[in-house]
Amino acid sequence: MAPDLEDKAELAAMASREFGHFVCLRDRLTELGADPFEAMQPFRAPIDAFHVHTAPRDWLEGLVKAYVGDGLAADFYREVAAFVDADTRELIIDSLEDSGQAEFVVDRVRKAIEADHRVGGRLALWGRRLMGEALSQAQRVAAERDALSALLAGGVDRPGMDLAAISRMFTRLTENHAQRMDALGLAA
Amino acid sequence: MAPDLEDKAELAAMASREFGHFVCLRDRLTELGADPFEAMQPFRAPIDAFHVHTAPRDWLEGLVKAYVGDGLAADFYREVAAFVDADTRELIIDSLEDSGQAEFVVDRVRKAIEADHRVGGRLALWGRRLMGEALSQAQRVAAERDALSALLAGGVDRPGMDLAAISRMFTRLTENHAQRMDALGLAA
Repeated sequence: MAPDLEDKAELAAMASREFGHFVCLRDRLTELGADPFEAMQPFRAPIDAFHVHTAPRDWLEGLVKAYVGDGLAADFYREVAAFVDADTRELIIDSLEDSGQAEFVVDRVRKAIEADHRVGGRLALWGRRLMGEALSQAQRVAAERDALSALLAGGVDRPGMDLAAISRMFTRLTENHAQRMDALGLAA
Repeated sequence: MAPDLEDKAELAAMASREFGHFVCLRDRLTELGADPFEAMQPFRAPIDAFHVHTAPRDWLEGLVKAYVGDGLAADFYREVAAFVDADTRELIIDSLEDSGQAEFVVDRVRKAIEADHRVGGRLALWGRRLMGEALSQAQRVAAERDALSALLAGGVDRPGMDLAAISRMFTRLTENHAQRMDALGLAA
């Protein structure tokens, strides 16, 4: 949906860098003795559902989705990273390094709003819908995945988050989302 | 459209390697003093038209398209490479190195035909349609682009192909296409 070849190339560059992150994470899972594809299987349905329910209708919706969705996912992975071993944590944090998306998307979206103010209203609604859909799928995962809940909640030998801490985590995620919407020039 | 995460990851790996080739070619164009995006602009419409007319309806059609289409394009670039300077030629040839697509596609398509022989008939038709559409867009480009025709045909100071040589080139392209269809287990 990119309007020109330059933007298409920029987007492909980001995708290529993100693929590099995927490779590192996949290899780490193998190193830890897991089958990376089996490990991801339980998350396939909610991730697919998220994408089906938030298929962008145009280039700008796609950009906002990439920025808002990746940002939210990155925040969540950063939270989870606090509870895994140091090597894995470092790898996760490295893989969340911004591949240049943020600046690119903010620039394109702000320019589009400058050119036509109605775009801002439409994309603000879109951003809220993305957040709602993400939270709803996250809830589904949390409800179905005891292992993930247990990781966040800690265990006999590990500290974790109690319900109040989990609630504070959701507050942090929501606040960061609002900041990203603000960066795009959109009302959260 | 990949049926599982393993195939999706394989495909993403190929796309990522291909993006590396794109970067080298883009940078070479810049080195030669051209704007790579401007240089590609005249080919955008025929390439887009090719994709609109050959949108795969499922995973197998997508695989056959990748294999047959990339193969044909690679053959053509190899032909053109004979007429450019040595450095550019080397870069083009390097960028055509198979990124593992061939083996992957041949394996998946042959397995699908083994599992259901009707698939072979459908994909054979599809392969012919891809070739027809590619030739028709190539003709459009050749007719509209004097520079490309001139490159192939040579000039006052450079050897090139006469009409008979161009016709032999089309024969080579068609023969290679038939070989690829054969490798997939499809009647050309």
